[in-house]
Amino acid sequence: MDVAIPDGIDPDVLAETIATEKAYSQELQRGGEWAHIWRCVGEYSNISIFDVADNDRLHEILWGLPLFKWMTCEVTALATHPSDIALLAPSAG
Amino acid sequence: MDVAIPDGIDPDVLAETIATEKAYSQELQRGGEWAHIWRCVGEYSNISIFDVADNDRLHEILWGLPLFKWMTCEVTALATHPSDIALLAPSAG
Amino acid sequence: MDVAIPDGIDPDVLAETIATEKAYSQELQRGGEWAHIWRCVGEYSNISIFDVADNDRLHEILWGLPLFKWMTCEVTALATHPSDIALLAPSAG
Amino acid sequence: MDVAIPDGIDPDVLAETIATEKAYSQELQRGGEWAHIWRCVGEYSNISIFDVADNDRLHEILWGLPLFKWMTCEVTALATHPSDIALLAPSAG
Amino acid sequence: MDVAIPDGIDPDVLAETIATEKAYSQELQRGGEWAHIWRCVGEYSNISIFDVADNDRLHEILWGLPLFKWMTCEVTALATHPSDIALLAPSAG
Amino acid sequence: MDVAIPDGIDPDVLAETIATEKAYSQELQRGGEWAHIWRCVGEYSNISIFDVADNDRLHEILWGLPLFKWMTCEVTALATHPSDIALLAPSAG
Amino acid sequence: MDVAIPDGIDPDVLAETIATEKAYSQELQRGGEWAHIWRCVGEYSNISIFDVADNDRLHEILWGLPLFKWMTCEVTALATHPSDIALLAPSAG
Amino acid sequence: MDVAIPDGIDPDVLAETIATEKAYSQELQRGGEWAHIWRCVGEYSNISIFDVADNDRLHEILWGLPLFKWMTCEVTALATHPSDIALLAPSAG
Amino acid sequence: MDVAIPDGIDPDVLAETIATEKAYSQELQRGGEWAHIWRCVGEYSNISIFDVADNDRLHEILWGLPLFKWMTCEVTALATHPSDIALLAPSAG
Amino acid sequence: MDVAIPDGIDPDVLAETIATEKAYSQELQRGGEWAHIWRCVGEYSNISIFDVADNDRLHEILWGLPLFKWMTCEVTALATHPSDIALLAPSAG
Repeated sequence: MDVAIPDGIDPDVLAETIATEKAYSQELQRGGEWAHIWRCVGEYSNISIFDVADNDRLHEILWGLPLFKWMTCEVTALATHPSDIALLAPSAG
Repeated sequence: MDVAIPDGIDPDVLAETIATEKAYSQELQRGGEWAHIWRCVGEYSNISIFDVADNDRLHEILWGLPLFKWMTCEVTALATHPSDIALLAPSAG
Repeated sequence: MDVAIPDGIDPDVLAETIATEKAYSQELQRGGEWAHIWRCVGEYSNISIFDVADNDRLHEILWGLPLFKWMTCEVTALATHPSDIALLAPSAG
Repeated sequence: MDVAIPDGIDPDVLAETIATEKAYSQELQRGGEWAHIWRCVGEYSNISIFDVADNDRLHEILWGLPLFKWMTCEVTALATHPSDIALLAPSAG
Repeated sequence: MDVAIPDGIDPDVLAETIATEKAYSQELQRGGEWAHIWRCVGEYSNISIFDVADNDRLHEILWGLPLFKWMTCEVTALATHPSDIALLAPSAG
Repeated sequence: MDVAIPDGIDPDVLAETIATEKAYSQELQRGGEWAHIWRCVGEYSNISIFDVADNDRLHEILWGLPLFKWMTCEVTALATHPSDIALLAPSAG
Repeated sequence: MDVAIPDGIDPDVLAETIATEKAYSQELQRGGEWAHIWRCVGEYSNISIFDVADNDRLHEILWGLPLFKWMTCEVTALATHPSDIALLAPSAG
Repeated sequence: MDVAIPDGIDPDVLAETIATEKAYSQELQRGGEWAHIWRCVGEYSNISIFDVADNDRLHEILWGLPLFKWMTCEVTALATHPSDIALLAPSAG
Repeated sequence: MDVAIPDGIDPDVLAETIATEKAYSQELQRGGEWAHIWRCVGEYSNISIFDVADNDRLHEILWGLPLFKWMTCEVTALATHPSDIALLAPSAG
Repeated sequence: MDVAIPDGIDPDVLAETIATEKAYSQELQRGGEWAHIWRCVGEYSNISIFDVADNDRLHEILWGLPLFKWMTCEVTALATHPSDIALLAPSAG
């Protein structure tokens, strides 16, 4: 997710939007659907891992991001890796 | 990490190399340096997250992969994201 | 899915692999998971639509393709489009 | 089809244009020329399949999209795939 | 259409294939389906214009090229341009 | 030739420029220098073939296009193809 | 780091921002974290080498650049090279 | 060197800048540092060859171009080619 | 023009081909059609300027290069630049 | 500089070539022309800074690398950056 905020945005509107974005993300992190988030060094962008029921739910989450209109998202479908040690646990999910 | 195994490799050598690769990865996962691994759907490649002391250690791990000679790796430097809820915990790392 | 068959493959092995591939695809089409398949004009490649339970199942299908080792796959996550007339039907899925 | 709506568009004009776009798409879906439409997850874009008489008709449809001036379209020519099970039916089209 | 002939091909086989390719192309040119062909300067590739009934026929023509297995084709769907003076003629096709 | 018309252009100025562009193109088509023009399906762009004395003349034609300032042109040098049936005619040009 | 300053910036604000940027860079160079800086010939961009404690610190430095909002940064993780003669010194770091 | 002049520039300012640019280029051509200049057909760009003392001087020349702020430059380091017939002359430079 | 010589070429054949290539290039340089040649630093490639009658002649020259089968050529059409001081001379060509 | 060593190279020849490469690099480092070398994490490639008299000398160094035939080099021309603190020293070079 790359964010490109156009010049000339009202600073108050921008600050409020970023605060709303943070709250939105943290609520989904607490709910477990937004599993991980990292900042890409030197960029206004992040790499996130989502654990959701299906593609429709993922699109709903991304489309609902307060900063969505200034974002470019790239989605990579991920699956369980056969070397993941979570598969070795008694009750691997 | 994309893997491209050339045609004509001896199947026994290949099977052994893949087994060694899996053991190598799982040992580092248990040690905590190889934090996450996911399979990219429809590709012989993975997306992994490493939590290592420095760049020299990361290179040592990747260079030591039994399949390294047939791999193409792309490394993205990641940092803590300000929205990460781990930062809200009493003792965030 | 692009297919690149290396020169020097035994023609009998190749013919058999292509036949197995076709049977594999048609069985999944009949089962409904491989929803659509089209040929890209002028290329040894196709565009297909899959309707599967989750990413693990999709990877299992693609990884199991008899021609997988000579293929390059690119997966795009798709969701229901709000303009799709299927949503207007009494019992849209 | 990617849509990029410039900042500063009058919200009423935009809402009306999107509504017109939806009606335009659904009429063509009902007529059978716009065979499929899916949303690309996390993007303001779609992948659609058209079943039209010729290239002139396809261009006429796309050029007539109410959102065309803010769109980037990429057209891939598709043909029947020899593995398509529709070819096995008594009267395949 | 780019052609990349691998090293090590038997020269006689190659010469015969190129001769067959030329005859194949010229027959389609005479039939009117292969409307134009130009050489890209400094490359073993060409730009061609086809005037065919539909995508299935175009794929059949390209797939049947004797050099197809060593080619990379890129197909661009073309339509009548509104500025084309052919549209001004009494019986424009 | 891709055309990207910026938002906010006066509609009358735009309509007049497009009309001038069409007249300019048709005059050169009648003169034989602008040999072919096709519309790329789903894009505000065209593929054209020019038959001109030299590069200076080609640049003069393109630079003189009324829409040139909003265009991106990509020029591919073309030569006669040895399979072109025009070479078989008694007086091939 | 590429810099793209939008047209229409107040020249005084710009001059002051560039001066602040220079002071910011030189302070970090003196502190040793910004190890090297070179200008890319013919571009408003630079290639720099940073020697920092971790990725969080590197992101903090880049994010804090006065010109950051007009920059595009690309970060490449570097490690010690086995051929580096610094490794041959009595107390290589 | 590609030039992209934004819409809305005052035509007088633009005309004067282009004239200054031309004089600047011609002075350097006469001095021998700007060895060659060609127009890329159909583009507002050129390919130039510079023969300068070092990279600092080349950057100074490019940075000083009156149109520099609207340009994108790509610099390729060139060296003497062993097949160059200038090397065969009695006093090759 | 990039050259990529495959491993396993007989060294004598290679040395002879390179010598033939050099002679071929120098003859065309003496004739004036191969106006300039430079080596790209750090690459087995060159940038050359040709001054030929037309595209057919340019293709004939490039296609005839002894190393052509291992080359990738990219041709850019160039025209006279309006700032070129050669235009100021009494008898500019 | 990326290195891609083809499968099937004799291991002894390879080991010797890598050793020669290391000695070659270290001699140039001691002489000051090869100013810096870093390993790109996770890749068989490096980023190096050269401080040489001119482009001909740089090409001579790179072309002479024992691994050159398996390398892909990308050269970026660098100049002194106006923010470099070396310029503030009494006798900046």
